[in-house]
Amino acid sequence: MSTIAVLGNGRVGGNLAAALTRAGHEVRVAGRAPGAAADAARAARIVINATPGAGSLERLAALREELRGKILVDVSNATVDGPDGLPADLIYPGSSLAEHLQDALPGTRVVKTLNTMLFSVMTAPDALAKAPDAFLSGEDPQAKHVVRELLVSLGWHPEWITDLGGIRTARATEAAILFVPHVIRTGGFAPFAISIAR
Amino acid sequence: MSTIAVLGNGRVGGNLAAALTRAGHEVRVAGRAPGAAADAARAARIVINATPGAGSLERLAALREELRGKILVDVSNATVDGPDGLPADLIYPGSSLAEHLQDALPGTRVVKTLNTMLFSVMTAPDALAKAPDAFLSGEDPQAKHVVRELLVSLGWHPEWITDLGGIRTARATEAAILFVPHVIRTGGFAPFAISIAR
Repeated sequence: MSTIAVLGNGRVGGNLAAALTRAGHEVRVAGRAPGAAADAARAARIVINATPGAGSLERLAALREELRGKILVDVSNATVDGPDGLPADLIYPGSSLAEHLQDALPGTRVVKTLNTMLFSVMTAPDALAKAPDAFLSGEDPQAKHVVRELLVSLGWHPEWITDLGGIRTARATEAAILFVPHVIRTGGFAPFAISIAR
Repeated sequence: MSTIAVLGNGRVGGNLAAALTRAGHEVRVAGRAPGAAADAARAARIVINATPGAGSLERLAALREELRGKILVDVSNATVDGPDGLPADLIYPGSSLAEHLQDALPGTRVVKTLNTMLFSVMTAPDALAKAPDAFLSGEDPQAKHVVRELLVSLGWHPEWITDLGGIRTARATEAAILFVPHVIRTGGFAPFAISIAR
């Protein structure tokens, strides 16, 4: 089991940290206190970005040294929220936060995943009636392999995890956030995951 | 049953026209011959845009008079294709073809639908192992009701059809096209539909 730093202790980060701890990982959670993220990142092999996507690029670029050589698992989405608090627009249309993070952190292996579902599904995929999909985007196959194992430890069946390809494919999964406000408006705040029916 | 004009006689238009005919609709297919699209649109109550999305805006804006008062069902996606012929980028990131069409055709009720799946699924949703979703985007509830009935006549179960809201929600479904090249690369050219697992 690996030491995993979770940056962000909101709903997403808190949920992931609890589930990763239950799965037997050593977990360090970093909130917004000065130096907390740097300390947590330094101690870990895998760092999960669960900070609000709108500020993630600036926040993580500042951790360039601490993140060097690490795997950065980015589960966030960079959105402009509407008056209802739900995502209304993408901050990086035609690109993606994940690509910007990988550009800003060339010594870090960025893997985008889990950003296409309600936060609760990230750690409880079995709770859905239909089998959900999780997607992996990233340049480094070995890093994606590590993240895949991490997802399996969270209850994801291997056949539910699809490697989409390089980091550029994150623009597909990040754009899927545009479904979310309408899915919640029509179906309520119930667990869901954007998936591929075959 | 309504008279339906299908603009575009490629794989998408041909498949739709055949299935709509089988379902008992009177169908007129318009290819690229001069005047064909105008003639077909004039005769119909419902017009389906199955022309390549990259040229749809120009082509349909030229039919402004013929499309006045009609329901325009837009099933296309406006993409820049990659060297492999698969969609690589959106032509209208941060917006959507459907919004541009609605702006260009204020006298027409645009409904976006069926643009989140392999063309074969549009007319054979039952062929998938998992129940697929179809989405509706448009400003006019009555037009969306008509399109919903049209989908049901093509074999869509009513509970598989989700009204996402206004035409702006088409930017969610149009962005879903970004999944397609990776879905095809990893899963082959097999039927699929971007759906919501719950």
